[in-house]
Amino acid sequence: MTAADPDKTPPDSPEFSRHPDLEWRETVRGSRPGDRFVRVARHRDFKRLRPGLLVPRPGVGEPRSGLGKILTSVRRAVIGSPLTTAQELEERTGKIKGLAIFATDNISSSAYATEEMMRMLALAGVAALSLTLPLTLAVISVLAVVIISDLVVIRTYPSGGGSYAVASDNLGMLAGLTAAAALLTDYVLTVAVSISAAVAAITSAFPLLHDQRVEIALVVIAFMTILNLRGIRESGSVFAAPIYLYLATILGLLAYGSFLALTGGLPKYQAPAENLAGWGTEPLALLLVLRAFASGSVALTGVEAVSNGVPAFKPPEVRNAQITLITMGVLFATIFLGISFISSQAGMVPDPTESETVLSQVARLLVGAGWYYYLVQFATALLLAFAANTAFNGFPRLAGILAGDRFLPRTFQFRGERLAFTTGIISLSLVSGLLIILFKGSVTSLIPLYTIGVFIAFTMSQAGLVRRWWRLRESEKGWRWRIIINGLGVSVTSVVTVIVAVSKFFLGAWMVLVLMPVLILMMWQIRRHYQQLESITRPETPLAPDKIHPRVVVPIANLGIPARQAVAFAAAISSDADVVGVHVTDDAVTAEGLREQWEAAYPRIPLVIIESPYRSLSGPFLSYLDALMETHPDDTMVVVLPELVPSHWWENLLHNQTALRLKTALLYHPGVIVASVPYHLAQQAEMEASS
Amino acid sequence: MTAADPDKTPPDSPEFSRHPDLEWRETVRGSRPGDRFVRVARHRDFKRLRPGLLVPRPGVGEPRSGLGKILTSVRRAVIGSPLTTAQELEERTGKIKGLAIFATDNISSSAYATEEMMRMLALAGVAALSLTLPLTLAVISVLAVVIISDLVVIRTYPSGGGSYAVASDNLGMLAGLTAAAALLTDYVLTVAVSISAAVAAITSAFPLLHDQRVEIALVVIAFMTILNLRGIRESGSVFAAPIYLYLATILGLLAYGSFLALTGGLPKYQAPAENLAGWGTEPLALLLVLRAFASGSVALTGVEAVSNGVPAFKPPEVRNAQITLITMGVLFATIFLGISFISSQAGMVPDPTESETVLSQVARLLVGAGWYYYLVQFATALLLAFAANTAFNGFPRLAGILAGDRFLPRTFQFRGERLAFTTGIISLSLVSGLLIILFKGSVTSLIPLYTIGVFIAFTMSQAGLVRRWWRLRESEKGWRWRIIINGLGVSVTSVVTVIVAVSKFFLGAWMVLVLMPVLILMMWQIRRHYQQLESITRPETPLAPDKIHPRVVVPIANLGIPARQAVAFAAAISSDADVVGVHVTDDAVTAEGLREQWEAAYPRIPLVIIESPYRSLSGPFLSYLDALMETHPDDTMVVVLPELVPSHWWENLLHNQTALRLKTALLYHPGVIVASVPYHLAQQAEMEASS
Repeated sequence: MTAADPDKTPPDSPEFSRHPDLEWRETVRGSRPGDRFVRVARHRDFKRLRPGLLVPRPGVGEPRSGLGKILTSVRRAVIGSPLTTAQELEERTGKIKGLAIFATDNISSSAYATEEMMRMLALAGVAALSLTLPLTLAVISVLAVVIISDLVVIRTYPSGGGSYAVASDNLGMLAGLTAAAALLTDYVLTVAVSISAAVAAITSAFPLLHDQRVEIALVVIAFMTILNLRGIRESGSVFAAPIYLYLATILGLLAYGSFLALTGGLPKYQAPAENLAGWGTEPLALLLVLRAFASGSVALTGVEAVSNGVPAFKPPEVRNAQITLITMGVLFATIFLGISFISSQAGMVPDPTESETVLSQVARLLVGAGWYYYLVQFATALLLAFAANTAFNGFPRLAGILAGDRFLPRTFQFRGERLAFTTGIISLSLVSGLLIILFKGSVTSLIPLYTIGVFIAFTMSQAGLVRRWWRLRESEKGWRWRIIINGLGVSVTSVVTVIVAVSKFFLGAWMVLVLMPVLILMMWQIRRHYQQLESITRPETPLAPDKIHPRVVVPIANLGIPARQAVAFAAAISSDADVVGVHVTDDAVTAEGLREQWEAAYPRIPLVIIESPYRSLSGPFLSYLDALMETHPDDTMVVVLPELVPSHWWENLLHNQTALRLKTALLYHPGVIVASVPYHLAQQAEMEASS
Repeated sequence: MTAADPDKTPPDSPEFSRHPDLEWRETVRGSRPGDRFVRVARHRDFKRLRPGLLVPRPGVGEPRSGLGKILTSVRRAVIGSPLTTAQELEERTGKIKGLAIFATDNISSSAYATEEMMRMLALAGVAALSLTLPLTLAVISVLAVVIISDLVVIRTYPSGGGSYAVASDNLGMLAGLTAAAALLTDYVLTVAVSISAAVAAITSAFPLLHDQRVEIALVVIAFMTILNLRGIRESGSVFAAPIYLYLATILGLLAYGSFLALTGGLPKYQAPAENLAGWGTEPLALLLVLRAFASGSVALTGVEAVSNGVPAFKPPEVRNAQITLITMGVLFATIFLGISFISSQAGMVPDPTESETVLSQVARLLVGAGWYYYLVQFATALLLAFAANTAFNGFPRLAGILAGDRFLPRTFQFRGERLAFTTGIISLSLVSGLLIILFKGSVTSLIPLYTIGVFIAFTMSQAGLVRRWWRLRESEKGWRWRIIINGLGVSVTSVVTVIVAVSKFFLGAWMVLVLMPVLILMMWQIRRHYQQLESITRPETPLAPDKIHPRVVVPIANLGIPARQAVAFAAAISSDADVVGVHVTDDAVTAEGLREQWEAAYPRIPLVIIESPYRSLSGPFLSYLDALMETHPDDTMVVVLPELVPSHWWENLLHNQTALRLKTALLYHPGVIVASVPYHLAQQAEMEASS
């Protein structure tokens, strides 16, 4: 409490009592008669940090009653209490957890890579399945090339070398956007494919659920969306469990199988007659082999995660990331090779109806339908779900970066109450859910769309690096061997891109190839729009207050309280002579009655009555406005609308159509300022109830 | 051209140059050097009738380019050029045309009344069809009673005695609303039933079209909607043709049939086996007879049209209307009786699949499938279509009257470019089209819903008259016999109402009995809402300009041109100290940069920065507004929003969400005036293109 001389600072002086800082002074009486103090008071809802700087106190702005409060409670229960920006965690990760975070997406592909190759080969008959193992080795060679190239990327971009960044950095905007479009589609497909594969792992174990696979997948996506809107921390230890569980169970299974195979004890798979009958209609042409190879190259999805995430590693970041990348590659290759090897040895035939996965067949063959079998299926499904989750992390983050570069709407940059990129998360779940519905949750149908984005992104970033080394050939020492490594990378990945695009074109790759240019064009247009916005130079209404001479037009239907509020406001913001009431009518008699009322109420404000012979209201009003703007080119037009705000939605049907139509039409009149003077019917109803 | 001394009336004196009448004076040079005149100029778009009274010149306000122009051309081509209110025709009608206008609806019922009775009776077996003729006589007796009562109505309400008017006048609002609800449902069903019956007449002649009957009916409704939006004149002579064609062909057919029957030459109907097999599963209980009677009482639909339309007759109106009513009753009774008589004599059995109407069977039996048969079918279909059209006239007119009494939204009162009640016409065609789809265009399924509304309306108006005579028993001489006539009327119609309601309850009458109270409640609520509106007494913002002390809040995201326009407008409508810019942010550093810019640009306008730790923008802004309103209770709050108006709809996705969210949220803040200062991106684009 600040005591002051009340006579010196008069308590109701406008400087203090009306400060927009919400600080004001009030006079309080002291304990002795005649004592008066001036107290500096502050508002209970805001804390004033400095003059002109406020912070709302906790809980301010939350709905205090009714539906809003219920909705807020539900939202809090589902996605949690809001987090402040300062609460963001910036935790670094070691190699063990790093593997869990960045390798999940890639290693999870091992659950279906072998199977997808076999499904292609089996189209040429069961005998063609003998090509599974050679093709596996071919894919692993490509993987090796990409991983070696990526080691260079990690070293070159320790701040995180996403394909978008590397490509825009070295090859320009178009290449960057191509990489971005490829990555965005890739993330969407990661969710669709991984969730579908996770559901397939579950329905393999519980065939009764097979017909509900789309519904199950959608529930999983919804659950994942909520988790991500809550802003789950991928650095949490819970994230490490699934991959190590999967590695342990699968490597155990494969070790046991290999032992059986080497000792000659591996059982032969007895394919049901319908499995055999479902296959083998096409000749084993080169196209089919290429398609099988393309399907297998799904093995490379998720490899880019490590090089994107270098800054998340503990120092030495580059070295830790490189070791993680190599470990990931070795583990993946081992599992992939192991599954292909045992499948081939056991004479596995995939199920043409997609009711059971090959991995499930292998596990069932080796260990029977016991606890270990269910453990394998559970670990697989869990890992795949977590793999989908990496896309829930990557997509919104990339979309946020693109929005920051003005290639996507700004809303993708906005982080919600829990610091999650709300728009990105919801967009991802909607699009991937739609894909699952369209493709009926079939991994095999989705695969042709999947791989192409991955390889386009690889090609872009490798090409970017080749360009970079060539550019830096004067200054950088080791540019020669680097250009060789990345040159090999770009050759291999571009060849695979072409193989995937051509061989899978009619199976669905065309969709991605059509969609990508559309996405690129869209992002380019968005940027153009924002740039146009930033280059605004000519104002529509004056930029200096003294240049504004308001000419105020008030459409009048009658002289009820809402209309009189509007006229009063109009007169308050200008002089009476610059206000005009406009009444459009097809009934001259009633109009003259209105004029009499008007002249009695507002003797100094003109009223213009427009007779509309065709009964149209907004048309003549807008024409009049145009005419007025033309005859008063130096004035700033202001239309003051009396607006009724109904207390129930259905009441909107009963009136306001004219006001609404006018408001919409005025949107297309440049330079017209529209002021709505509201009247709330709810208030009126409350007042009536209380009186 | 008015010459005047330029020095005496300075050409740019504000009184003249800025008159809102669009009249201004401009200086023109004369032919000799130094000559100057002041010319009174008027705007090319408006004609000034008197000071303050303008009329737009023809064509003003029509879109001059692009999509709007195309849409206008299409609308003109479909519904015609606009008509002025003065162009309304007020033509009186004689007895010949009067019969055509007012009797079409009623007489068209003869096309299906016999058949619907027979369909009910046949449920108890073909033998039960012998009751057709007695039931026909019973229905005709009811008709006679109603017509006699209606003669009294005509005499009592020569200005048009609709059930709604008579019931509200004598029994109060609830009875009036009951009659109104009954009439509205009745009109809808008139369209649905008549169009279905018209299509049945056509598909009887061309059975191949039977499966498309719903589609045909919808096309007919669409066509009729367009015709009525064009505002067809029911007084046109074209309207008289169908009924006289129908009367001639049907009476001719019946005369020929009766001659054959009396001379013993009437052929016996050979019912196909499937016709016989389709019937006769129920016992002939009283309920079934009552149902047949209820079906037959559809014969009374449309009777009320004459008493509604008395003022349209040439003088002596009452006498002409009464003669028309009696003529209508006699003609209807003759046809109804004739069809029932010949059907009974010939042993007609209705077709259980509703593929052929009984009238078609009768015509085919009597004259074979020759030209006269097709003439009968054509005349029937045409008359039924015109009968539907009477509902297109009655429904919008009644809805307009109800809207005038504030029981329906005002838009029902609005007459479009062609003087037609657009909303009523479109509502009627939508609801009746929906009914036809739901009931698959079956007359028999629709009938149970139809008659009940008619009889409720009759009962209400007859009861109203009984009440009236009792009230006027002192002053009115002939009250005794009038009370007897209308008392008989109300007894008969109320008994029939109960018969229809009970016997047809489960067949569909329940829908009407549920719908009517809903309609009544809705109309009552609408009236209540409008009354609440008219009783507004307490303003939200002051009604006198000098009571308004604006406190203007401008939300600021950056200091681009749109924001600076808004600040300038804010400062122009108040003093600098009463304006405050508000910037909500979670980024204190950027915010301080903005503050520096702001202080350089607006040294005398305060900027308040609100740090929003949870990144929410509108929440803290609205809380601040609340706080400001609380600390400045005597000020009028004005929020000035910089608003970007994009040139393409998709650009709305790129921004404006915050402005939009704020605008919506501000709707729930009573007493806050919202002014939008627009910036049109299209303008900017044009400017760029031209520069």
